[in-house]
Amino acid sequence: MTQALGPDGGLAAALRRTLDGRWSAVRDDVRALPAELVVPRLELTDVEAQRALVAERLQALAARGHGRRGLPPAHGGDGDVGGGVVAFEMLGYGDLSLLVRSGVQWGLFGGAVLSLGTERHHELLDDIASLRLPGCFAMTETDHGSDVQSLRTTATYDESTDELVVHTPYDGATKNYIGGAARDARLAVVFCQLSTRGKPRGVHAVLVPVRDQQGHPCPGVTVADCGVKAGLNGVDNGRLAFDHVRVPRTNLLGRYGDIAPDGTYSSPVDDPDRRFFTMLGTLVRGRVSVAGAAGAATRLALTIAVRYGEARRQFSRPGGAAGADEVVLLDYRAHQRRLLPALATSYALAFAQDELVGVLHDLSTRPGDARDGSSADGDVRADDVAGRQHAQRELESRAAGLKAVATWHATATIQTCREACGGAGYMSENRLPALKADTDVFTTFEGDNTVLLQLVAKGLLTAYREEFGSLDTRGTVRFVVSQVAGTVIERTTALQLIGRLVESARSRDGEGDVLDRGHQLSLLEQREEHVLDGLARRLRRGAADGVDPFELVNDAQDHLLLAARAHVDRVVLEAFVAGIDRCDDDAREVLERLADLHVLSLLERERGWFLEHGRMSTRTARSLPGHLDQLCAALRPHASALVDAFGIPEEWLGATIV
Amino acid sequence: MTQALGPDGGLAAALRRTLDGRWSAVRDDVRALPAELVVPRLELTDVEAQRALVAERLQALAARGHGRRGLPPAHGGDGDVGGGVVAFEMLGYGDLSLLVRSGVQWGLFGGAVLSLGTERHHELLDDIASLRLPGCFAMTETDHGSDVQSLRTTATYDESTDELVVHTPYDGATKNYIGGAARDARLAVVFCQLSTRGKPRGVHAVLVPVRDQQGHPCPGVTVADCGVKAGLNGVDNGRLAFDHVRVPRTNLLGRYGDIAPDGTYSSPVDDPDRRFFTMLGTLVRGRVSVAGAAGAATRLALTIAVRYGEARRQFSRPGGAAGADEVVLLDYRAHQRRLLPALATSYALAFAQDELVGVLHDLSTRPGDARDGSSADGDVRADDVAGRQHAQRELESRAAGLKAVATWHATATIQTCREACGGAGYMSENRLPALKADTDVFTTFEGDNTVLLQLVAKGLLTAYREEFGSLDTRGTVRFVVSQVAGTVIERTTALQLIGRLVESARSRDGEGDVLDRGHQLSLLEQREEHVLDGLARRLRRGAADGVDPFELVNDAQDHLLLAARAHVDRVVLEAFVAGIDRCDDDAREVLERLADLHVLSLLERERGWFLEHGRMSTRTARSLPGHLDQLCAALRPHASALVDAFGIPEEWLGATIV
Repeated sequence: MTQALGPDGGLAAALRRTLDGRWSAVRDDVRALPAELVVPRLELTDVEAQRALVAERLQALAARGHGRRGLPPAHGGDGDVGGGVVAFEMLGYGDLSLLVRSGVQWGLFGGAVLSLGTERHHELLDDIASLRLPGCFAMTETDHGSDVQSLRTTATYDESTDELVVHTPYDGATKNYIGGAARDARLAVVFCQLSTRGKPRGVHAVLVPVRDQQGHPCPGVTVADCGVKAGLNGVDNGRLAFDHVRVPRTNLLGRYGDIAPDGTYSSPVDDPDRRFFTMLGTLVRGRVSVAGAAGAATRLALTIAVRYGEARRQFSRPGGAAGADEVVLLDYRAHQRRLLPALATSYALAFAQDELVGVLHDLSTRPGDARDGSSADGDVRADDVAGRQHAQRELESRAAGLKAVATWHATATIQTCREACGGAGYMSENRLPALKADTDVFTTFEGDNTVLLQLVAKGLLTAYREEFGSLDTRGTVRFVVSQVAGTVIERTTALQLIGRLVESARSRDGEGDVLDRGHQLSLLEQREEHVLDGLARRLRRGAADGVDPFELVNDAQDHLLLAARAHVDRVVLEAFVAGIDRCDDDAREVLERLADLHVLSLLERERGWFLEHGRMSTRTARSLPGHLDQLCAALRPHASALVDAFGIPEEWLGATIV
Repeated sequence: MTQALGPDGGLAAALRRTLDGRWSAVRDDVRALPAELVVPRLELTDVEAQRALVAERLQALAARGHGRRGLPPAHGGDGDVGGGVVAFEMLGYGDLSLLVRSGVQWGLFGGAVLSLGTERHHELLDDIASLRLPGCFAMTETDHGSDVQSLRTTATYDESTDELVVHTPYDGATKNYIGGAARDARLAVVFCQLSTRGKPRGVHAVLVPVRDQQGHPCPGVTVADCGVKAGLNGVDNGRLAFDHVRVPRTNLLGRYGDIAPDGTYSSPVDDPDRRFFTMLGTLVRGRVSVAGAAGAATRLALTIAVRYGEARRQFSRPGGAAGADEVVLLDYRAHQRRLLPALATSYALAFAQDELVGVLHDLSTRPGDARDGSSADGDVRADDVAGRQHAQRELESRAAGLKAVATWHATATIQTCREACGGAGYMSENRLPALKADTDVFTTFEGDNTVLLQLVAKGLLTAYREEFGSLDTRGTVRFVVSQVAGTVIERTTALQLIGRLVESARSRDGEGDVLDRGHQLSLLEQREEHVLDGLARRLRRGAADGVDPFELVNDAQDHLLLAARAHVDRVVLEAFVAGIDRCDDDAREVLERLADLHVLSLLERERGWFLEHGRMSTRTARSLPGHLDQLCAALRPHASALVDAFGIPEEWLGATIV
């Protein structure tokens, strides 16, 4: 490792061990990649030059086996699903176009072939991993993005030739923004409305060759280029339209719905809606990966801004001569208040991400299969299957929530870092412009954040209804606690700790101390309960009053978004507490203060809610800025160690100001 | 005009007449520019191609007399200072690189020659206006940006040759990020520490030739290119270093400090600090202009997002078949809540900007000169001079505050618009990426926003001290009211109206209705008073306790920023009220609701403060989301008219999605 540790190096090392967590070996593996393979070439503006560079780098990654990490051993991989996601995340310290392009090839394209395909398709996995077969993932259409169920591309089975006919019925059904489509992809996973024997079967995925070996579009396939984008210009996003393109029936990725030669349709999941959501559920890895990449990009931006803030001086101390005894930027309280709470929340999200990857990994690598209710392992009992289905739903919900919160945090924090570096932050050579522009789309791709948070809220409401039915809404405490207890997340000790902390805080008289961890946890838990309970009552009342369902839910959108946020806020703080619980002793004190800074910033921002719901006194609310100032002052000496702990190799930083 | 007005056209026209305001003729003049001159070429990525295009367009603007608008008639201009700023703002609907490049040439470079120079320099103004003399404004250095008083470039008078020696003493004193320096500028206004007869005289500006007619750097001048930036790549930002470059003594822009041939220094302003701030004060036009441009870019982004929101459909109504009866994005309450409050605040800021431009214009075009206390007009009396100095200070403070708030609003709103357009918003062809990237630097150039808000707060504290001295802090109401009454802003009627509204709201019993305009004004006034009063007491107490001055002010930075924001919030709402007071009758109803939406969004965001200071009941605070939903629902049918009212020519929109 070339990571230079400063005088606070012991602290940085301890923090790093804690942050690196379960996949520390994978992280070090990626850190060992040569800088010339991953550091963005910020001076390149020509789109074709950027694409060519990324294509070349992707080949180099493939040659190093990067495409195999997440594959099951049966397909030549090492079966390390979590490691694959973590490796992807680590590329977020490098070239984000390379990251996204690798995600398209191995995560989306390869992932769809693996998850939605059957054995006949799995033969392709080796070529996908090695990049001998470059592909793309053609889901989004011009007119339909978030609403995948309404896609308009069709795939109609023709018994007479044993072929599927893939067709774009009108311009708005053109596949759009498809990474890999404009230049490199030869095979596309095309999501379309399947029909056989004249009956619609819902959205399925079909493999459609889009380019021949020479790179020319296949007959009937029209390829267009999306052209210049805000960022990620090393990714060749394009458009695909199909004019009655014929592919063999066996090109249907038929795991969840297959066609026999005579046109008979069969599926292991009877209910069409459940089948659709089961298919989409297999793609959860993409959202987990984006949340991870957003985290890495945010930490890189903070590293640059903190280092600049430590080096840059501006204005003299009062009484000093102009230009003498100038103050380091990071000594200004306002500068600390901009950067350090964002840094604290970045730690919180890193712990939450680590947990999420763990859940994904464990669910993906256990024997049996939770997703379709069938079992590949005869020993798996029914309640285990139900447990897995529950776990899968929780994973999907948590991935959606964390993806939304982490990517918005990235957008806001990278913006703050840019501004904290002034004019220098605006120069491409200092990396912040590309970090901003490249990550900007994270908030709307792999699921629009606003839509995702509504999904989270709807999931919470479903669980709430299952728990309470038509009962009165008393006892949501019990509900949330049982939900916590039912979590699949591996932190048994921490879970007990959290319960104890909350219990102890609630047993005390008076308002509670905002610096008490149990009280902090309790406040976020109360907010989640109260918001969800109010939302459920509001919807039930409206339904009882005969309000039009669309109007009812539409008017409550703000409430839905708040419920989802409140949920994610609680989950993230609990992950932070669990992270501290298993941290290196040398890191504990600083992490405790960092957790305070994270949660008190949140409480200050949301204090309106706590005040108007009688959950916080005005005295406490007014004390928050003072606490934040003190926490910033206490953490300021450790700012460098806190970013050094991310372990971004020095040669990767690539910003001239650091 | 090619502006297509929809069915709501009468409303759009009435709103537009109100928004266009005093300089409507100038606005129409700029709107009449051919699209091929101003619409950005979004497909260009090559930096040199972008610079060449902007240089060519700037010539075309010069040929149309754009460089003369703000010049006094004596120098061949039309003396319309306000019109010049408004014309600059209108270019914000076009190519932002062209806007900034024109601002560098005519605003900063030309403005410095006009304001800081004397007759001998004013001969250059004609060549500057026509672009025969391209120049740049070399203030910022690598090590000193916001702290102009500490710049390190030196200009030393050499009596023996009657020359000034301009020198860059070390790398950190290199002029940096200078627009025009990398490619086109031939003459630079260089800010440097002047010394003569061995004595330092503080920062002054000197004209230094940097390129010859062939475009080669002049001897002793080192030019470097800042390279690729986040945006504004049509502007050739560069670095300038000087190695003992000799220029004639008369190149000193000597209005506020001149040197006689024998080296004697003289200035009309004795106090060096006051001299420095007087010189900087002449540059206020730049900040007013940036605030205006930020407003235009924001309105353009909102126009694109609202039109997309009206056209794009996603998800079916409940109970409908997938893909049938799909809902227009802007019918979703969450979508309205993202775009409409931002639109409302954009109206508020447009009115505030219009007021500010009016003050700038009136102060700049009245006989006499407020800035140096001297008088070019023998009839100007002493109290008039004092009044002008007060007015100039208020103008500078308001320009700083509005620049900060308007540019942050631009950054946040353009981001929201990008996200509201999903993947389409990420494509360069839809303009939002360039709008985002180009305006991003507005928050830190022409004064870093955080620094500017602290200047505003310090100005408020100074006025506060002048008013109260060491008195008790009772009666701040009187102070703020007197400050309002003392305003130079031309809205006598509106001022009386505001007073009446507040008076009437305060005379009523009970908490007050958040939909009552007087109560809204009163709430923002109370917040400003209370925050400022608390800040003053805090600082006084700390000083009395002997706290180190740096620590005292540093710990209070958050408080300073809040005081400045509270001040700007009040000023902006008052400008909105004044704008409605003089609006077209057909626009009144919608503007009233829009003002409600603006102020209620602000109150909802800031309700923590009002609650914790007992200025709002929890019941009222909890009613705010419901009010916002209702206001959004009420305004939603007018969304298109509200953006059509900006009068952006159709051919300028240049986004494929609108």
